Amino acid sequence: MSTAIPISKTRKLLLAILVTCLGAPAVAAPQNGNLPPLVIKSQGSFFAGGAVLTQPGTFDPTSSAPVGQTLYGDHTYVQYQIPNGNPRKYPLVMWHGGGQSGKSWESTVDGREGYQSIFLRRDFPVYIIDQPRRGRAGNTTVGQNLIPTPSDESLFVAWRLGLYPPTLYPGSQFPPGADALNQFYRQMTPDTGPGNNAVVVPGVVAAFEKIGPSVLLTHSASGLPGWLTGIASPNVKGIYAYEPTGYVFPTGSVPPPMGGIAGTEVSMSDFLKLTKIPIVIEYSDHIPAADQPSPYPRVENWRLRMILGRQMAKLINDNGGDATIVHLPELGIYGNTHFSFADLNNIQIADLLSQWLKEKGLDARN
Amino acid sequence: MSTAIPISKTRKLLLAILVTCLGAPAVAAPQNGNLPPLVIKSQGSFFAGGAVLTQPGTFDPTSSAPVGQTLYGDHTYVQYQIPNGNPRKYPLVMWHGGGQSGKSWESTVDGREGYQSIFLRRDFPVYIIDQPRRGRAGNTTVGQNLIPTPSDESLFVAWRLGLYPPTLYPGSQFPPGADALNQFYRQMTPDTGPGNNAVVVPGVVAAFEKIGPSVLLTHSASGLPGWLTGIASPNVKGIYAYEPTGYVFPTGSVPPPMGGIAGTEVSMSDFLKLTKIPIVIEYSDHIPAADQPSPYPRVENWRLRMILGRQMAKLINDNGGDATIVHLPELGIYGNTHFSFADLNNIQIADLLSQWLKEKGLDARN
Repeated sequence: MSTAIPISKTRKLLLAILVTCLGAPAVAAPQNGNLPPLVIKSQGSFFAGGAVLTQPGTFDPTSSAPVGQTLYGDHTYVQYQIPNGNPRKYPLVMWHGGGQSGKSWESTVDGREGYQSIFLRRDFPVYIIDQPRRGRAGNTTVGQNLIPTPSDESLFVAWRLGLYPPTLYPGSQFPPGADALNQFYRQMTPDTGPGNNAVVVPGVVAAFEKIGPSVLLTHSASGLPGWLTGIASPNVKGIYAYEPTGYVFPTGSVPPPMGGIAGTEVSMSDFLKLTKIPIVIEYSDHIPAADQPSPYPRVENWRLRMILGRQMAKLINDNGGDATIVHLPELGIYGNTHFSFADLNNIQIADLLSQWLKEKGLDARN
Repeated sequence: MSTAIPISKTRKLLLAILVTCLGAPAVAAPQNGNLPPLVIKSQGSFFAGGAVLTQPGTFDPTSSAPVGQTLYGDHTYVQYQIPNGNPRKYPLVMWHGGGQSGKSWESTVDGREGYQSIFLRRDFPVYIIDQPRRGRAGNTTVGQNLIPTPSDESLFVAWRLGLYPPTLYPGSQFPPGADALNQFYRQMTPDTGPGNNAVVVPGVVAAFEKIGPSVLLTHSASGLPGWLTGIASPNVKGIYAYEPTGYVFPTGSVPPPMGGIAGTEVSMSDFLKLTKIPIVIEYSDHIPAADQPSPYPRVENWRLRMILGRQMAKLINDNGGDATIVHLPELGIYGNTHFSFADLNNIQIADLLSQWLKEKGLDARN
């Protein structure tokens, strides 16, 4: 399942556009509580990888015709901040999920600090990407017809905020209130070109070439290309995957598809590369037990994905690797959504990541 | 002229895709020279304004059909950083140009600090936006068919890097070398929906409602919606426009179109609102003199625009306003491109802005 905005080609929809209230409470001058200031040695952004679309011929500077002109696209956008002092050796590279941009890791939907600032405070260099053909990396060498298709409520269910939007699950860790949900829905941003791991993975691998050895955080739809990036780039020193939608298995060991959820085949030699780095696959709350199918297909998908994730982790470990399944309710942590890293208890969620980084020696300083 | 990526509907282009070299020199761990660290009180991002597309009917949580679902789009994305200590009272709001995103104001194409960090160092809160239907604000309530059309070399000419890409004008302030040009071209990112000031302006006005009283920097294609935002929002306390492509005139005073370059009519009462705030219109180098038409249409446009800009500034001043034309070569500053704020001498260019802010009392502290 892709969580990108669905593109329907010809359906005509009866659509009503309602301008939302512009008078929502101000969030622009947030109080940072008693937090000390962030001290940043350097910050900025750059592009990595990508392709060049070239129109044959000779450019005529008195004409705007495409003849002889280029279009640079399919790159990754990378924004970074390096904390001052004696930072950790391995940066964290944060890769958004489907239909999202790097915004996912910045402020939470209720204006608290997200992983960007939380991990700067913990002395990690932070690199946040927009994958090729998404967000600020929108230039694409292959176009597509972009037809807005309402899907927020499906995502509300799929991302396990609740079953009947806008009503949250009781005890949900999602920030309450209409303003938070408004901010959440607006995080969605479409692909500008066809989604294609053959484009996305080389773009992110190129980012890792510029960033150097670092730890990759993936979320949801970046799970699968995240595994492929970990296979392709020796600079990926660990992967912490938040609810990946996709999983890889070596040739001959791909489980039969379950209800449309299928593993992705890679060669055994590629699969074994994932046994050389520590890995976590994290699942939040409200995923049905393995033997309890859900009548809600977008929730049921998560039951099947967690089964697949456990199978992938077992295969990694059977081959000498180090993969851990973290299922938050098993740790007594309840109410988290598909965006645990931005939920109300995101400091607690961040602590789990910090603890793992420490255990694996990935939080060493230079 | 729109500087957004042109969308051609039916032309079939012979296109060749060349994957660029991934082994370019690393830029990811830039040295910040002897600059002191940035000390940030708080930072983050949020969305402002926008619309909601609603599919009639009742949502069925067991279905993914659009029935009864919403799509939130047409909002502005805002990223902010508030310096620690005793910052300036009026933040700077930085609005990118056509085909660009907020990235324009971050690192320069050769990895130096852009206006984002330069003005944080000068104690200004900095708000950088992606306008509706651009970059991280990509969700749109109206779709479009996105067809990549090579146009980089036209932009090289239009943005006055030189006439024969990749050869820069002698003495250009654009960072030299293929890597810088590669980064520059990759800053382009397309509109996800039709460009429309009736969508863009309310989105940015909503951002100003959240940000509060502040100074607006526009660039190129944000020039025209920038004037309209200044008219619509009492929170715009000054406008510094870098080479705006569009200009406003009161009813009855719109100059006749020149070579396809035309002013935009607003009511006299709206126009007079622009006489209540200080305004600068800045032009860089390599714009032909008013009486010297250029055989290069995309350069010629700038001759006509500067004529129009001088007319607009004069009308503002004739009506008691405070508009200044800054033509860099007249100050003895040569070689700047359409992106003066990111050129090699961008500290010098920033100094001009700082000086104006001081003269107008817009750099006061709280």
